[in-house]
Amino acid sequence: MTASVVPVILSGGSGTRLWPVSRPERPKQLLALTAAETMLQLTARRTDATAASYISFGAPILVANANHADVIEEQLAEIGITDSQILLEPFGRNTAPAIALAALVADNPADALLVMPSDHVILDLPAFHAAIAQALPLVSEGWLVTFGITPDAPETGYGYIQMGDAVQGTVKAVTRFVEKPDAVRAADMLAEGGYAWNAGIFLFRADAYLAALEEFQPDMLVAAKASLEKGRKDGQRFYPDATSFEACPSDSIDYAVMEKAAKVACVPVDMGWSDVGSWDSLHAISDKDDNGNAVRGDVLTLDTARCLVHSDGPRVAMVGVEDLIVVVAHGDIMILRRGQSQNVKKVTEALKNR
Amino acid sequence: MTASVVPVILSGGSGTRLWPVSRPERPKQLLALTAAETMLQLTARRTDATAASYISFGAPILVANANHADVIEEQLAEIGITDSQILLEPFGRNTAPAIALAALVADNPADALLVMPSDHVILDLPAFHAAIAQALPLVSEGWLVTFGITPDAPETGYGYIQMGDAVQGTVKAVTRFVEKPDAVRAADMLAEGGYAWNAGIFLFRADAYLAALEEFQPDMLVAAKASLEKGRKDGQRFYPDATSFEACPSDSIDYAVMEKAAKVACVPVDMGWSDVGSWDSLHAISDKDDNGNAVRGDVLTLDTARCLVHSDGPRVAMVGVEDLIVVVAHGDIMILRRGQSQNVKKVTEALKNR
Repeated sequence: MTASVVPVILSGGSGTRLWPVSRPERPKQLLALTAAETMLQLTARRTDATAASYISFGAPILVANANHADVIEEQLAEIGITDSQILLEPFGRNTAPAIALAALVADNPADALLVMPSDHVILDLPAFHAAIAQALPLVSEGWLVTFGITPDAPETGYGYIQMGDAVQGTVKAVTRFVEKPDAVRAADMLAEGGYAWNAGIFLFRADAYLAALEEFQPDMLVAAKASLEKGRKDGQRFYPDATSFEACPSDSIDYAVMEKAAKVACVPVDMGWSDVGSWDSLHAISDKDDNGNAVRGDVLTLDTARCLVHSDGPRVAMVGVEDLIVVVAHGDIMILRRGQSQNVKKVTEALKNR
Repeated sequence: MTASVVPVILSGGSGTRLWPVSRPERPKQLLALTAAETMLQLTARRTDATAASYISFGAPILVANANHADVIEEQLAEIGITDSQILLEPFGRNTAPAIALAALVADNPADALLVMPSDHVILDLPAFHAAIAQALPLVSEGWLVTFGITPDAPETGYGYIQMGDAVQGTVKAVTRFVEKPDAVRAADMLAEGGYAWNAGIFLFRADAYLAALEEFQPDMLVAAKASLEKGRKDGQRFYPDATSFEACPSDSIDYAVMEKAAKVACVPVDMGWSDVGSWDSLHAISDKDDNGNAVRGDVLTLDTARCLVHSDGPRVAMVGVEDLIVVVAHGDIMILRRGQSQNVKKVTEALKNR
């Protein structure tokens, strides 16, 4: 049996930061925020048959919330993907168990799992494929590889990876993982160099990940196995057993595995990546008109500059304004000063408390 | 038959400047923009039984567009006015003919007609009543009296009245009417003193107005009389004959009568008046919270200052913004920088041309 690079697409996010568009029943990855296709579809396309590369990609494994089963299957079918396995979690247990499920259902223990969040943007696909190709020789030797985004600003919203000596080609050993820093620490790391953003994208053999789990998270591995053994298959869908899965510790792959394992490497890559973690970052990556406005929907702008305007229906007219984020969705209207989109949570909390 | 002061309320405006709230089918005067009651209701209340004053006000005469008959009758009934005469124009012929119709249906030729636009704000009602009382002695002698608003800024949106010598008490002779000035001319007039804004509020005997029409606008008088003779009564409503009314010249009372007549006086008054001619002027006269925000509807403001927000339904959340006008009505959303509300027309034209 030939080994492949198997895309493992994680669709667990609940997406509160892009309120009022994203909501628990339709989180960010299931929305067409950046293009005509949804972020999940764009993610799946990066490794499908249309993605020109010499890499042999297998059928994808999706790990998602069971509530989203219909829409995920529908969105994948829309782009011609009907051979995926869709693992439907009864509830979220963070990334380490989600990836454990995927590693356990992979056809071949030697398959390289390419773990990707379903709600990120990657503009430079050849750069992504090149980074995958660079990592594969180490992956085949059992290394756990993470993709480190070359930082271009002192971001405080991401974790960082400190890179050490080269292991092979451009791939570096990981010295340590750094938690989301404050502004001073972020600026220091940018100035010092040798750091990359942790994008939550990983590449490793299925058996290498399972071996690491056995060593560092044996309870997690037992629970994941049990939930699959007692689970239920339904076409492309697989429903792990809820009772068994409930016993699974909840943890991120970073904490549970990457920070503990020995053979951990980082492939630095500059690929036009964004986690689209806020309306501000969506504005940053969006196509804009001559005045710096990024608009979607029925929008009229007069003497208006550097605004992001999204409407899911109602007509929006903007006159003489600058640097605003205007989002109209599901009957809600939100108007933010640009640069303040971290305050969306304040809005949703204030509305909840009324 | 005792003579009264008969309110003549003009409801002819089409209200495009307060789009998207005001629309031809529901213009400004029929909306509750400034209070729980509509501007028409607030206007009618200024001279109804609840308006404490020593003046003997008669039942009002409304002159309105026939399309608004139902809503006008309904709004008057809501505030207990069921004895009005509602003259329903088949189409607008400006103010001089509208007032001619009212003068012709007045019960008593000696009645003093208090002509008032239906869409203005007057905050200081005692000052208004005092000005009426000051004007009445001259009115009884056949003078045509206009109310001159004491200016507090070099407004270019109003006509001005230059006042001459005192005729009686505080009432001055009118030297001349000045068209809407440019900014320089407006500043000059404010500095020079002796000018007032022309608010379109008038007081004169019905017979005095009809005599002036006979002298200066005989065709208008003939057409108005004919349209009433051939018209149709229906309860409180009266429908002037359209064919006769069509023959009536279209002109404002200012041009047709006031600028030509001999005994024209002006009573200067400072009464918290606004024509609410724009979203900016509505913000200026509205009650505001500690941050200078005037909001109506389901609105949440966080770190937001000096904004006007009106929503007819959808929830609006504003974060970190200043000096915006946000209006949500009839499925349209308009976002303007404060101070730019003269550009509403640009919006409606741009939308029409799309």
